[in-house]
Amino acid sequence: MIRRSLWVTLVTSLSTFLLAGPATSAESLQQVMKRRGLSQEDLLAAAKTYVPTGGRDEFVAFSSGGQSGHVIVYGIPSMRILKYIAVFTPEPWQAYGYDEESKAVLAQGRMDGRDITWGDTHHPAISETNGDYDGQYLFINDKANPRIAVIDLHDFETKQIVVSPVFQSEHGGAFVSENTEYVIQAAQYAAPLGGEYSPLERFNEDYRGGVTYWKFNREKGKLEPENSFSIELPPYSQDLSDFGKLASSGWSFTNSFCSERYVGGIERGRPPFEAGCSAKDTDYLHVINWKKAAQVAAAGKATKINGHDVIMMDTAIEEGLVYLIPEPKSPHGVDVSPDGKYIVISGKLDSHTFVYSWKKIQDAIAAKDFVKKDPYGIPIIALETALHTQVPLGLGPLHTQFDSAPGVAYTSLYVDSMAARWDYVNGKLLDRLPIHYNIGHLMTMHGDTVKPRGKYLVALNKLAIDRFNPVGPLHPQNHQLIDIGGDKMSLLRDMPLPLGEPHYSVAIEAGLLKPAIRYRVGTNTRTGEISPHKTRAGEEKIERNGKKVTVHGTLIRSHITPEIIEVDEGDEVTIHLTNLERAQDQTHGFTISKYNVNGSWEPGKTATVSFTADTAGVFPFYCTEFCSALHLEMQGYLLVKPKGYKAKVGELMPKEQYDQEDYEKQVATNVATQKTIDGVVSYITGRNYRQFATAAALFEDAAEQLEYAAEMKAKAEEEAANGNWHSATLWAGQWWQYQVKAADLGLRAKTHLEQAGAGPAM
Amino acid sequence: MIRRSLWVTLVTSLSTFLLAGPATSAESLQQVMKRRGLSQEDLLAAAKTYVPTGGRDEFVAFSSGGQSGHVIVYGIPSMRILKYIAVFTPEPWQAYGYDEESKAVLAQGRMDGRDITWGDTHHPAISETNGDYDGQYLFINDKANPRIAVIDLHDFETKQIVVSPVFQSEHGGAFVSENTEYVIQAAQYAAPLGGEYSPLERFNEDYRGGVTYWKFNREKGKLEPENSFSIELPPYSQDLSDFGKLASSGWSFTNSFCSERYVGGIERGRPPFEAGCSAKDTDYLHVINWKKAAQVAAAGKATKINGHDVIMMDTAIEEGLVYLIPEPKSPHGVDVSPDGKYIVISGKLDSHTFVYSWKKIQDAIAAKDFVKKDPYGIPIIALETALHTQVPLGLGPLHTQFDSAPGVAYTSLYVDSMAARWDYVNGKLLDRLPIHYNIGHLMTMHGDTVKPRGKYLVALNKLAIDRFNPVGPLHPQNHQLIDIGGDKMSLLRDMPLPLGEPHYSVAIEAGLLKPAIRYRVGTNTRTGEISPHKTRAGEEKIERNGKKVTVHGTLIRSHITPEIIEVDEGDEVTIHLTNLERAQDQTHGFTISKYNVNGSWEPGKTATVSFTADTAGVFPFYCTEFCSALHLEMQGYLLVKPKGYKAKVGELMPKEQYDQEDYEKQVATNVATQKTIDGVVSYITGRNYRQFATAAALFEDAAEQLEYAAEMKAKAEEEAANGNWHSATLWAGQWWQYQVKAADLGLRAKTHLEQAGAGPAM
Repeated sequence: MIRRSLWVTLVTSLSTFLLAGPATSAESLQQVMKRRGLSQEDLLAAAKTYVPTGGRDEFVAFSSGGQSGHVIVYGIPSMRILKYIAVFTPEPWQAYGYDEESKAVLAQGRMDGRDITWGDTHHPAISETNGDYDGQYLFINDKANPRIAVIDLHDFETKQIVVSPVFQSEHGGAFVSENTEYVIQAAQYAAPLGGEYSPLERFNEDYRGGVTYWKFNREKGKLEPENSFSIELPPYSQDLSDFGKLASSGWSFTNSFCSERYVGGIERGRPPFEAGCSAKDTDYLHVINWKKAAQVAAAGKATKINGHDVIMMDTAIEEGLVYLIPEPKSPHGVDVSPDGKYIVISGKLDSHTFVYSWKKIQDAIAAKDFVKKDPYGIPIIALETALHTQVPLGLGPLHTQFDSAPGVAYTSLYVDSMAARWDYVNGKLLDRLPIHYNIGHLMTMHGDTVKPRGKYLVALNKLAIDRFNPVGPLHPQNHQLIDIGGDKMSLLRDMPLPLGEPHYSVAIEAGLLKPAIRYRVGTNTRTGEISPHKTRAGEEKIERNGKKVTVHGTLIRSHITPEIIEVDEGDEVTIHLTNLERAQDQTHGFTISKYNVNGSWEPGKTATVSFTADTAGVFPFYCTEFCSALHLEMQGYLLVKPKGYKAKVGELMPKEQYDQEDYEKQVATNVATQKTIDGVVSYITGRNYRQFATAAALFEDAAEQLEYAAEMKAKAEEEAANGNWHSATLWAGQWWQYQVKAADLGLRAKTHLEQAGAGPAM
Repeated sequence: MIRRSLWVTLVTSLSTFLLAGPATSAESLQQVMKRRGLSQEDLLAAAKTYVPTGGRDEFVAFSSGGQSGHVIVYGIPSMRILKYIAVFTPEPWQAYGYDEESKAVLAQGRMDGRDITWGDTHHPAISETNGDYDGQYLFINDKANPRIAVIDLHDFETKQIVVSPVFQSEHGGAFVSENTEYVIQAAQYAAPLGGEYSPLERFNEDYRGGVTYWKFNREKGKLEPENSFSIELPPYSQDLSDFGKLASSGWSFTNSFCSERYVGGIERGRPPFEAGCSAKDTDYLHVINWKKAAQVAAAGKATKINGHDVIMMDTAIEEGLVYLIPEPKSPHGVDVSPDGKYIVISGKLDSHTFVYSWKKIQDAIAAKDFVKKDPYGIPIIALETALHTQVPLGLGPLHTQFDSAPGVAYTSLYVDSMAARWDYVNGKLLDRLPIHYNIGHLMTMHGDTVKPRGKYLVALNKLAIDRFNPVGPLHPQNHQLIDIGGDKMSLLRDMPLPLGEPHYSVAIEAGLLKPAIRYRVGTNTRTGEISPHKTRAGEEKIERNGKKVTVHGTLIRSHITPEIIEVDEGDEVTIHLTNLERAQDQTHGFTISKYNVNGSWEPGKTATVSFTADTAGVFPFYCTEFCSALHLEMQGYLLVKPKGYKAKVGELMPKEQYDQEDYEKQVATNVATQKTIDGVVSYITGRNYRQFATAAALFEDAAEQLEYAAEMKAKAEEEAANGNWHSATLWAGQWWQYQVKAADLGLRAKTHLEQAGAGPAM
C-alpha cells in the first residue's frame, strides 16, 4: 500500500524543514540597483516608504472614490490600499445592498421615489474634537445626488445616508465644525430650492444656491435632519467650504464660481458654460456666521421647505449672517489656517493664491465697511480690505493644506502640474515640485486641522497618462507621495488608484483609529443593535407561516446550519444568519446559486437575505469566504419543490457505508493528529505567547476548536458504544475536522511567535 | 487696483522657480533605516520592488476578485493595483451596468429570468497560443452562478457572459487549452443536469457533475455556445481542472472532492458535509480525452439538454473518453507540468503532494489496466499504477505552479501557512517559506504555461489578521510577493487586497499586453462595432417622437453639447453621447442629478443612457471625470416641465452684460497668454520631443486645442466687427479657454521632457 497515514509525519516535517529565519538572497544591494536601474534617490525613496511584513503604516488616509461611490482607505507611507468602503454603490464583498440590513441604509438615499445605485463621492471629513481629528466617524458627500453619508470608524461601515431636502446637486461637503456640531453641504449648480420647476429664463429670479448645516449627534452617530438648517444663497454655484477654527470659530467660508450667473447653450449658438462662467476676474467668497444662523433658525425665523428650515436670503442679510468678498476667478479650495487667522483661496484661472485676513474681515463687518451689495442685497467687503497678501505660486492653483511648521502651506497647481510649498504669512514661495499630471486636491497629515502633523504630502492627480503599465483607454488616477520633512520636497512614490476617481482625502495618525475586530454576537451592524434574529448554536430552526418560510441559521468553521432547506415553489424565503465566530478575520459568506442571494458575515454579525423561490430545482448554497481547509465543504442545498410534486421513494445514502474498521482507522488518525497538536501546543506554551496579542488570540481560538473536537469525540464514542459504526465514523471525522482547525491555528500562532522573536515562557 | 493681469507672469514664474531636478533630502539612507527600523534585508526587498515614478512593472497579474465580482489587475514587483475590471457586478466608474451597451452584456448573464447583480469570480485564464500566454483575452468564472465571462485585453472591458445550460454551480474554470480552442468549466456541487428538481434521496441516481468545454472563436473574441459541449460525470463535486499540454495535449484533468457522495444535515442530527465529505482517504482525478470528446459530440452522439450537447456517461465510457484515478483527499489544484509529462495534485487533507506520470496513465489506458469501475461504470486506474512519486511537503497542500528551472515547482501549504519549493521529478523538498496566513492558491510568472518565467512567486493568502493597519472586522486579504531568483525563497512585500477575495491569479510579461489608448470615433465598446448613434461635432441634435425624446450629443474638454435639454414630465429620454477626444486619458463622465443616470466615455466611445423623466423640475448634469481646469463648468441642465405648465415670460440673461472694454480686456489677456504658450512651444520644439511618445502626444493634443482657439478667435472677431460686444467677449472667453488647455498640455509635455532628460532638437 503506497498510501500512508496522514498528518503523522507532521512533527518530523516541521523539525526538519522549518527555517530558522528569513532567507538571504545571493544578489547584493548594488547588483539589484544596477539590474533595476535605481538611483541612490530611488533607493532612499524606497526605504522611506517600504513597510516590512507585519509592519504598520504611520497614517491612514480616507479618500473619496469619485464615481465609484466608495471611500478608499490607504496607508501612508506605503501607499497600500487597505479597503474600499461601500457608501452609495451596492458592493457584494461587503454585502452592501445585498443583505436586508444594508439595503435599509441605501434606501435612506432614495430620491423622488427612485433607487440611486451609485454616487459621486468627493470630500471626506473625519470627525473632530477641539479642531483635530478624533477618528470616530467619517462623512462623505455625493455630488451627483445631493446626499451625505456617515461611516462609523468603529467598523468602517456606512450607517446613514441623508438626502438634501432643498438642493438638486451639491459639491462643497462634507466638512465639519471644530467639535463636529455640524457637517456642511453647499449646493453646486443652482436650481429652484426644494425641487420646483422653473424655466432658465427665470434663472436670476428663481434659481438659488445655498449651504446646509447638518446637525450631528455624536452619541447616536447620526445626522439629525430635524435639527439641521440651510441658508438660501444667490445662484453663484457655491463650491467648497471650510469651517473657521480657533480665531474664526463660529464662522464658515464657502467659495463660488460662475457668479456671472451665465447659462450656456452651445446647441443654440451661445458660448458654452465654460466661457461664460469664467468671463469675470473674480467670484465671491461667502462668509457665514453659522453659530448665529443656528440661533436664528432655532428662533423660528426660518422658512420650511420640504419640512426643512431654510433661512431665506432677506433674513440672512437682516440678521447679519452672510457677507461676500471677491475672490480669484473659478476657485476651488477655501482653506482656513490652523490658527484660524487666515483664509487661503486659489482660483484655478488666476496665477496668484490669495490670503485673506480674518481680522480684517471681522473689522470690516464690525465697521460695516462694505463697498456695495450684490444683486440680492448681500453686503460685499472689498478684496483690498480683506486681503492679507497674494502670492504668484504658479498656474491653476486649486487647493491648500497646511504644514506642522507655522505659516507653511502647500498648494496644488493644476495647470502647471506642480505642488508649491510657500509661506502664507509672509507671502513667499519656498519650493515647487513637478507632479504627474494635473494635480487636483492635495493632502497633508491632519492638514486641515488645528494641528497639522507635517511629514508627508499627497498629490491627488487627475491623470496618469504614461505613469503605469497601460490598462486600456480608462486609466487609473495617480496619487503621489511627497516627503516634506526636508528642506526641499522630494517625490517618494506613485500610487495608481484602481477603481474610481478620488477628489479629496484626509489622513489621520494611525494610532487614533481604534476599529473593532468582532461584534457582540447577534449584532445588526448597520444599526449597532442586537438583531431580533440573533441565533445561538443549537437554536437554528426553519419555520413556515403560509407561504412564508423563515430560517434562523448559524455559520461557523466550516458548516452552515441548517444544511438542507426545503421549500415549495413560490414560497417567500427569509434567511437570518448569525456568524458564531469570535476569532479575528473569521468572516463567512453565504450564497445560493442562481438566486442572486449573497451576504457577508463578520464575527458576531447577524444579517438577513430574502428571496421568492420562484424557480423549482436544486440550488447549492455555500460559504463564499475561504474559512478553513474544509471551506469548499461548507455547503448545503436549497430544494425548491415544483408545484404539485409527488415525492419518489428513496433513501438518503446507504446507512452502513462505514464499518468498525473505518471507525478505528479514523480514531487512529485522530490520536496521531492529537500528538501533533500537543507538540505545537507545547511549543507555544513554552514561549511567552501571552505577550503577543495575535498569537494569544490564535491560541485561544485553537483551544475553542479543541473543545468542539472533544464534543465530537464524545458523540463518536457514544455511537461506537452502540455499535452504530457508520455514524460513529462520521462523527469521528468531524472530531478530526476540529483538530485540523486547531492545528492550523496553532501553526499560525507558532509562525507568528517565531517571526516575532518570542522568548521562553515566564 | 490690487488685481493684476493673469497668466502674464507665467514665463517669469517658470524661469524663476522651475527646479532643475529632483530635490535631495538631508536625511541619509542610514538615518532613514534607523528611524524606520528597517533591516538590510528589508532594504534589499524594498529595492527589489520599488518602481520609480514613470517606471513599468515587469509582469502584470490578473487576479479574481472573489465575491466582488471583479477582476483585479496589479503590477509585479511593485504590487500596485492598476485596475478593477467589472465583470459580473455593476460598477459605476466604468459605467458597467449603467450605460445601455454594458447593461446588454450583464443581461447575457441573467438566469431563470432573474438579474444576477454580482458574481463569485475564482479562476482567471489568459488566452494561449502554443501553450503560452498571448495577452489577447482573459476568461473568468462565476462560482455562485455557473457562468464564464470574456474580457478583451485590448481595452480591459468585459465583452461577453455565457450561462451554463446544465450546471447549478461550478468552480473548476476557467482554464484554456493550448491554443484556446476551449475554455473548461467544471461543475462543483452536484445537482440534476439542466436544472430539474429531484429530492436528495435520489442523489446517487439523479444528481450529476460534469465538465463543459466552451468553444472559443478567437477572431470574434466570443465563446460559442452552439459549438460547445459537456460531459456528464458522477456526483463527485468536480473541482479544479487543467488542460494537458505538449505530451498530454488533447487531454484534460479535473479533480473532485466528496466522492463519498455524502449529504450532510446537521439540523437533522447528521454530521455536517465537512465530516462526511472527507471520510475517505482518496477522491477521484478525472482524466478526459477532450479532443476525442469533441469528435464524439460533433458526430451527433451527444444528448441535448436545454439545447446544449451533453455526452452522457454511458457514451463517454463506451467511447473511452473518461477515466478515474484515486487522488489525495479533498484536493484543490491539479497542475500539469510545463512539458505535459506530470500531473501534480495536492489534497488539502493529506501531507503529501502526489505526482502522476502521464506516460504511466497513457500506458494504463492503452493496456486497459484498470483495477475496477466506479459505481457508474467509469474505469479506475490504480493510484500505484499512475503515480510517479509522492512528496511530504507539509500540511494542507493546495495548489502548484512551476518555475523556469526544469523540474522545480511551488506548492502552497494551507494548514502550515507555507510555500514549498520542490523537485517534482526527483521527489525532493528544496525549501519552505512561512506565509501570513493560510495561503490558498499561489502564482508564478506564466506558471501554468509551457514556458514559466521564474523570478517571482505570489502567495494568495486568505487571511490578513495582524498584517496591516486594522480596518474593522472585515479584513483585506494578503498577497505576498516572494523572490524565487535565489537559492532560497525570500519574502519581498505584503499587499493588502482592498476589495473582494482573490482566489487565483495569472501573471503575464508586461510587454505581451498591447492595450489601446483610444477607440475609433463612435465605437460601441462592448461590441467593438461603430455605434449607429456615433455623433460628430456639429451633428448634435435633440429629436422628439411622441413621448420619446432622443438626444445625440458630444463630449469634449470642457463642454457637453447640448447644454440644455428640455423635456416634458413623463417623456422617455434616451441620450447617446460620443467622446470626441483623441488624447490619451481624456475620459469624460456624464450624470444627471437625482435621475440615477451615469456613464463613462473614454476617447472615441459612444454610449447611451436612458430614463423616464417622471419627476418635474430642474436637474443639473455635469461631467464626472476631472478633465480640465474648467471641468466644474462642464455642466448643463435637464429641464422637466410639469404636465400642463404654462411658460412665464422672461429673457435668458441680460444680453448686453459685456461691453467693448470687456472685450478688449479679454483679448489683451489672450494675447499675453499666447506669448506664454509660444514660450512653451519654443521650449518643446527646441528639444527632440518626437522621441518621447508621451510628450509628442501631448504636444499634438495642444496643437489641436490651439486650432479650436483659432476658430473661437474668428467667431469673437466676427461678433466684434458687428459691434456685438457681449457675444464677442464670451467667444473671446472661449478662445482663452482653449488657450488654457493648450498651455496645460504644453506644460505637461515640458515637465515630461525635463524629467526624461530630452536633448536638443535634431
